[in-house]
Amino acid sequence: MDCAVARTLDLVGERWALLILMQSLRGVYRFEELQKRLGIGRATLARRLDELVEAGLLERVRYEEHPPRFEYRPTAKGRDLAPVIAAVLEWGNRWTRDDGPTQYLTHQGCGDDISALVTCSDCGEPLTADRLRIRRRRPEAVVS
Amino acid sequence: MDCAVARTLDLVGERWALLILMQSLRGVYRFEELQKRLGIGRATLARRLDELVEAGLLERVRYEEHPPRFEYRPTAKGRDLAPVIAAVLEWGNRWTRDDGPTQYLTHQGCGDDISALVTCSDCGEPLTADRLRIRRRRPEAVVS
Repeated sequence: MDCAVARTLDLVGERWALLILMQSLRGVYRFEELQKRLGIGRATLARRLDELVEAGLLERVRYEEHPPRFEYRPTAKGRDLAPVIAAVLEWGNRWTRDDGPTQYLTHQGCGDDISALVTCSDCGEPLTADRLRIRRRRPEAVVS
Repeated sequence: MDCAVARTLDLVGERWALLILMQSLRGVYRFEELQKRLGIGRATLARRLDELVEAGLLERVRYEEHPPRFEYRPTAKGRDLAPVIAAVLEWGNRWTRDDGPTQYLTHQGCGDDISALVTCSDCGEPLTADRLRIRRRRPEAVVS
């Protein structure tokens, strides 16, 4: 499908992918620690890590020579998912909190317990469904 | 898992779910039209629509009495995913555009061809991985 959202979901749409990335953005880089934190099966974790490396979201870095051991660090592409994860978390805190605890976002050097707002680059206002349109072509080329 | 991101992915992490919601936010409410636009199998679409209704993201509305016909309209909870979709799309435009065309966001009454920025509610700056922290407890209660 010719859609940036579909292409993104092809990379990180699988449930574990985004949760693994979230841990790696928190500084959890190693297999054993990821496995413990996520409670994910070893085979599934190994497969997801390979896919995330393949997609250029994590890179496999050797941290020990003898025996060779590797960890998985987020690339620039992976790190750029942090704001997306923040937007997902914001929605989850608002609409699913009855099912469990809230997470809190901290913006270093700024506020504790902030919210993530998805805003318009032009006017700075939060984007909402009623005024947002997604188009396949540049707006000036749109007929209908 | 006690995580707002995981709970959100349980609802909309499945690839088709977010793509169906995106169409419904564009005003595509009916089964046949959704099927045509998404190129999705009928059985899969029917199942995903049921799940989205069950999750409170779409509501099933009768638009014809004889014979009874229904369409699927986004609820407030579903409409509130628009900014999340915008953030996903922004990332996809930036990191996956080699694989296909870009989508454009329009903010009505404001700019054409805007960007969606995920910003801090406190300082208004775009959130980036290096200054963003996700915590399970209120920041003042955090030990490490």
